[in-house]
Amino acid sequence: MADKPSGALGIIAGSGALPRRLIDNAQAKGRKVFVIALEGEAEPETVANVAHMWCRLGAAAKALRAMRDNGVGDICFGGGVRRPSLSAVRPDWRAAKFFAKVGYRLLGDDGLFSAIAKELESEGFRVIGAHDLLDEAVTVSVGPLGRIAPDADAEADIARGVEIARAIGALDIGQAVVVQQGLVLGVEAIEGTDALLRRCGELRRDGAGGVLVKVEKPGQEARIDRPTLGPQTVRLAAEAGLRGIAAEAGATLLLDRDEVIRAADDAGLFVVGVRVS
Amino acid sequence: MADKPSGALGIIAGSGALPRRLIDNAQAKGRKVFVIALEGEAEPETVANVAHMWCRLGAAAKALRAMRDNGVGDICFGGGVRRPSLSAVRPDWRAAKFFAKVGYRLLGDDGLFSAIAKELESEGFRVIGAHDLLDEAVTVSVGPLGRIAPDADAEADIARGVEIARAIGALDIGQAVVVQQGLVLGVEAIEGTDALLRRCGELRRDGAGGVLVKVEKPGQEARIDRPTLGPQTVRLAAEAGLRGIAAEAGATLLLDRDEVIRAADDAGLFVVGVRVS
Repeated sequence: MADKPSGALGIIAGSGALPRRLIDNAQAKGRKVFVIALEGEAEPETVANVAHMWCRLGAAAKALRAMRDNGVGDICFGGGVRRPSLSAVRPDWRAAKFFAKVGYRLLGDDGLFSAIAKELESEGFRVIGAHDLLDEAVTVSVGPLGRIAPDADAEADIARGVEIARAIGALDIGQAVVVQQGLVLGVEAIEGTDALLRRCGELRRDGAGGVLVKVEKPGQEARIDRPTLGPQTVRLAAEAGLRGIAAEAGATLLLDRDEVIRAADDAGLFVVGVRVS
Repeated sequence: MADKPSGALGIIAGSGALPRRLIDNAQAKGRKVFVIALEGEAEPETVANVAHMWCRLGAAAKALRAMRDNGVGDICFGGGVRRPSLSAVRPDWRAAKFFAKVGYRLLGDDGLFSAIAKELESEGFRVIGAHDLLDEAVTVSVGPLGRIAPDADAEADIARGVEIARAIGALDIGQAVVVQQGLVLGVEAIEGTDALLRRCGELRRDGAGGVLVKVEKPGQEARIDRPTLGPQTVRLAAEAGLRGIAAEAGATLLLDRDEVIRAADDAGLFVVGVRVS
């Protein structure tokens, strides 16, 4: 949990269900919320009935001004953002100043997210992780979540997957990998986990299905970019013929725990939290 | 070049143009050739007008016997093979004996290829690399192949790509990566380079296009599994909106050098050989 709230809560909203979860949670506690909805990423439902402004990624000055005008003290990032090329960002003067300082193309996601957090703090905001705002037990715990547990073969695939996911995470490439019977079916890069799962359905081999392994990148800016797991992940994993999902315990954000478990049990998949040292 | 030929040349033929190239080259030199055409991989044109036998992957005893019966002394692997799960291999007694000795699921491609080469040598065959049989200058040399050379931005993407490709190669995941303006669009796993390129077309960002980087895996069984580059690679790279291709000099097999250069020049792509220490 973060220390006591400071001012209104600013939520930078990308795609998916997490931003709405953050909004509902904060509003239920009576906290004032102001949302920066990222164009092309946030869904209209996300910002229904809440003070918000749509903003393109490069419009830093506009976003900062709006947050100040709305009394924002704490800022929380939630949801997915497809990282664009610098030219597609069309940075305004404020964003250009930032990129001139930190570089852009030399930074991986981790480096970029850390630099953004630091920049916001230099502007007087406090950056808070989504997991610090949500009271529910939202990070995956160690062990199986549903009725099904991985067998020894699946455990071997999980071990190989963790090794690979850590390595590609250290290179700041991605945080997910699919392993089937020791074969690496796919490695996540910029396309994201959903696209990885869709592709692995076509690459699957005969016999026992594969395992999706998701871990936090070493050195990841955990306040901004945590591995996330929700019912959609389970559905896509089932469609891809996987046997289960292993996610780093204590690091992976779990959206809709009950629905995740129900979907996994219904599809005959395991979802297991693994300790990654 | 390999030492003097020993017996007939056995060619284990997978997909693509390389096996036919090997056959034509050996026949032009008057050498007797016998081809094991891998079911589901080799194309019928590959084995037209040459002594051959179709064989599924797991039928090791049948393949070994046929090669002996046809006087094979040297064996050369050529073309692509989609690695199946062990259950899909349906190993015969000979293959099962081999897999029982070396394991299967614990071996990456490199480990598996090395074990196969060793096993064939223990059976009295000699395993020869495709690059040792083809007289043409078939490995990529250092520097641009066509009219176009990478600029400084592309060089930066190449450098990042080499770093990543080496790392995923060391993990025995794949040997290719696509980088655009510092962003890792995709990493090759079991799907192969062609599928990687097709997917990266949809992931491309605005602005200057990306670069495909292909390197040999560290410790790769170079006689069996070399990175390969042909006109098809150039065509797919162009369709994916890439600016160019960088391939490890001295290691990458170049199929149809002239056509590769013509296709690259026509499409406005660079193809460059890079030194990877």
